[in-house]
Amino acid sequence: MILSISSRAEYDLPAQTFVLLQIEPALQGATHRVLEESLQTTPTPRTELWNDLYQNPQRRFMAPLGLFSFNFLARIECQPNAPLPLDAQELPPEQIPAECMIYTLPSRYCQSDRLTNMAMSEFGLMTPGGSRIATIANWINGRVTYQYGTSDAMTDAFDTATSREGVCRDFAHLLISFCRALGVPARYVSGYCLELEPPDFHAWVQVFLGDGNGGGAWHNVDATFNGLRPALVPIAFGRDAADVAMTTFFGQGNLHEQVVNVQKESD
Amino acid sequence: MILSISSRAEYDLPAQTFVLLQIEPALQGATHRVLEESLQTTPTPRTELWNDLYQNPQRRFMAPLGLFSFNFLARIECQPNAPLPLDAQELPPEQIPAECMIYTLPSRYCQSDRLTNMAMSEFGLMTPGGSRIATIANWINGRVTYQYGTSDAMTDAFDTATSREGVCRDFAHLLISFCRALGVPARYVSGYCLELEPPDFHAWVQVFLGDGNGGGAWHNVDATFNGLRPALVPIAFGRDAADVAMTTFFGQGNLHEQVVNVQKESD
Amino acid sequence: MILSISSRAEYDLPAQTFVLLQIEPALQGATHRVLEESLQTTPTPRTELWNDLYQNPQRRFMAPLGLFSFNFLARIECQPNAPLPLDAQELPPEQIPAECMIYTLPSRYCQSDRLTNMAMSEFGLMTPGGSRIATIANWINGRVTYQYGTSDAMTDAFDTATSREGVCRDFAHLLISFCRALGVPARYVSGYCLELEPPDFHAWVQVFLGDGNGGGAWHNVDATFNGLRPALVPIAFGRDAADVAMTTFFGQGNLHEQVVNVQKESD
Amino acid sequence: MILSISSRAEYDLPAQTFVLLQIEPALQGATHRVLEESLQTTPTPRTELWNDLYQNPQRRFMAPLGLFSFNFLARIECQPNAPLPLDAQELPPEQIPAECMIYTLPSRYCQSDRLTNMAMSEFGLMTPGGSRIATIANWINGRVTYQYGTSDAMTDAFDTATSREGVCRDFAHLLISFCRALGVPARYVSGYCLELEPPDFHAWVQVFLGDGNGGGAWHNVDATFNGLRPALVPIAFGRDAADVAMTTFFGQGNLHEQVVNVQKESD
Repeated sequence: MILSISSRAEYDLPAQTFVLLQIEPALQGATHRVLEESLQTTPTPRTELWNDLYQNPQRRFMAPLGLFSFNFLARIECQPNAPLPLDAQELPPEQIPAECMIYTLPSRYCQSDRLTNMAMSEFGLMTPGGSRIATIANWINGRVTYQYGTSDAMTDAFDTATSREGVCRDFAHLLISFCRALGVPARYVSGYCLELEPPDFHAWVQVFLGDGNGGGAWHNVDATFNGLRPALVPIAFGRDAADVAMTTFFGQGNLHEQVVNVQKESD
Repeated sequence: MILSISSRAEYDLPAQTFVLLQIEPALQGATHRVLEESLQTTPTPRTELWNDLYQNPQRRFMAPLGLFSFNFLARIECQPNAPLPLDAQELPPEQIPAECMIYTLPSRYCQSDRLTNMAMSEFGLMTPGGSRIATIANWINGRVTYQYGTSDAMTDAFDTATSREGVCRDFAHLLISFCRALGVPARYVSGYCLELEPPDFHAWVQVFLGDGNGGGAWHNVDATFNGLRPALVPIAFGRDAADVAMTTFFGQGNLHEQVVNVQKESD
Repeated sequence: MILSISSRAEYDLPAQTFVLLQIEPALQGATHRVLEESLQTTPTPRTELWNDLYQNPQRRFMAPLGLFSFNFLARIECQPNAPLPLDAQELPPEQIPAECMIYTLPSRYCQSDRLTNMAMSEFGLMTPGGSRIATIANWINGRVTYQYGTSDAMTDAFDTATSREGVCRDFAHLLISFCRALGVPARYVSGYCLELEPPDFHAWVQVFLGDGNGGGAWHNVDATFNGLRPALVPIAFGRDAADVAMTTFFGQGNLHEQVVNVQKESD
Repeated sequence: MILSISSRAEYDLPAQTFVLLQIEPALQGATHRVLEESLQTTPTPRTELWNDLYQNPQRRFMAPLGLFSFNFLARIECQPNAPLPLDAQELPPEQIPAECMIYTLPSRYCQSDRLTNMAMSEFGLMTPGGSRIATIANWINGRVTYQYGTSDAMTDAFDTATSREGVCRDFAHLLISFCRALGVPARYVSGYCLELEPPDFHAWVQVFLGDGNGGGAWHNVDATFNGLRPALVPIAFGRDAADVAMTTFFGQGNLHEQVVNVQKESD
């Protein structure tokens, strides 16, 4: 399908401020292709584009004092979001590609080491595979309450396991942690989502599962929703939210307004 | 039934040390009566007996440098431990006796405030009453692994909710926390237990439930065991383990040996 | 001096609600005497007055659905708040009165056990006594930022030791924890304070120190302020804030307005 | 100087086990060059060598059931360990190389975000630069007690900030966290250390500082020691200990014996 995507925001900067911006999808991903795009930053600082440790595109620039805004527009061709294949396989470590291994390790917000016993006591006896991962996502969806303002930038999966409240970021961190605790590579994805209410940036999870023929692939899983969002376009992958902030202001950046919009242009 | 109880321990004290000792049951409790008892502390310091904030008997004394031991012997008449009455009632706050209210508040090891959402998401939809409390105890028993050395004096219920391992003290703290989170007065009990393997001091929980006729009573619940220990004799009640330490050495107290023994003399 | 004190608040109750109210000072305290007082609760529920575990007066009543308010007025004779005597003594455990011992134990918000090493590494080499306690209060005052909204009802001293921000309650919890970690009995006090800006209820600390002649007394210490508030009238003592909530609504209690006022009538 | 390095260990594996091994330094580093090396794994599984996300060499192999050992020997030419240049500069974010930015972000064991206020209240007023970083290392060295068995694989910098005890790994995590909290890129290094008593693998920190001429470099800092270890050879760099485990057994690996030896052959 073809998606029309826009995101823009306006900030007040009390001083010249160095900024990192990570809102542009890679031009070509596993399930999407950017057809057209434009990024405008006003006033127009000279932005440097580079690929971070995980190969995500990231803008770096110095924004002058005063009003600062970015405005990103894109037309993107993408495949519909596919449900997690329930018969996909959890792979033994020797079959996990070496470069996926880092996604089995604990990270800032996903302390899978501290959640191992909980994962084992809740999910340890289930048959491994896509169906178990789907069950975990459902378990989280049914036991964690979605509520703005109940979590913040310090909240991690160890907290959410007990506090049972948060936003998409927290749902993702907890799902990632349980998956890693069971030995399944799981990574955090920030991106654009079709039919998100209210419209906003979104965060979800990808797990690496085997196809039963010696191969494997990353699959989307989203504990925030019961059903399937029809399309997801990744901006950046990382170990958790610490790695993929949409905006980083080295100094004060007072947000005035942020608007994200994702529309389906055609099937 | 008549129980024959003994507890003794030997310590090496590198200096004269102030000691608190809390191993003697009250002479008369709701379900027990001390028939005979003797406490020997060697060398023989002059011990002061007083009742703490919760009216538990406690010894206070200065033990000289060197080997120190206590030896407690008692014959105790007690009623058999009764199962939690499944039809007992969780009381609304206005029907909870004023003096029980403190056992609905969070405490050092039982952070019921931080466990409220978890208690609600796991047990909130169940019918209130003795049967719900029994279900919570079973839930803990099935999900927390009993293992010496997995917890320590710092471990609290918030930890155990996720770490899912510990000893009787941790099982008790988690059960207390869930009960308080649901508004049920719950207190920590240290004491003697018949048929504990290996023999040791024990810790369990009492909850205050209504009898349906305007009255109420404290009932034993023990998440450490699936079945019912045949007899429990309380030494001390408190908000959690912080309040009822068997021994407190203000200085170093190197334990050589501790032996607890509980035998049934007659029915 | 003579103080004129008032506190009132208005709530909206969406249902009949059981309420605990703890805003009245004891009629007679170590440093104050209530000359006149009146408490009006509207609509006028029949309130029960009792003394809690710590002998603090507490009201218990059922408030009907709708607007609920309390209005407390008092004239109180009190001694000026005295600075902590710097030459008062930290007592060895055997000289601490038995009933003060519970204030050396960790509690919900004052995990002195987890803060022992920090207390020892920061203050362990200082000469014990009132001067050390004053130094600790100054240390906290200089390193913790007073800021509404940076802490909440879950925040404990272990958090504040690192987060370094909070309100009077958090300053008190951290000071209590350090004192207990060093073996000094320390308790939490809620009460009325002269020259608090903006006027509000206040929380501070009392430590039990020796007078060098075999006696001892509780002394006020307040890490929230650099200087000395001129008068403090205690409402309730407890192990920490969990024990002395001004208002407890068993259900929803939406606060409309709260006003506290403390004036000096005469010296 | 020329170092002679050896490390070997023997394990009992109750089943065929997948293993990751990260004990070989890169052949060429900023301050060392491997002259000769040999790695023997017995029984001799076919090992795969690859470079991880941070470009550290890592072995991957399947070890059969039974006794398993590795034996690594190397002769390494390395520059003496240099003290942190006290006049080196902390760089503003726009001057930090893009690829160093990830080392300013919080990670599993280095929650710099949660330690920002503590870092600011203890070190915020000091003049930025190498001297401030050295002061922080000294602060940690003086306030944290080195003691085996006081920390474990779950211990993170937030814990150590208060618990004030640990091993080299914990000293490194706390130092990294304070540096990142102040905006200084800091990474975890595992490696070999000359004159470590008792001999073992070691962990320390590298910070990225500017040279005052538009350039910058990574410098060793080691809060575990007061003085300077004469030589440090890095095995692996990462965000914290989660990234650079010497051995990872996917299953049980019972260690029998481990011996590390580092000798100076010549200057």
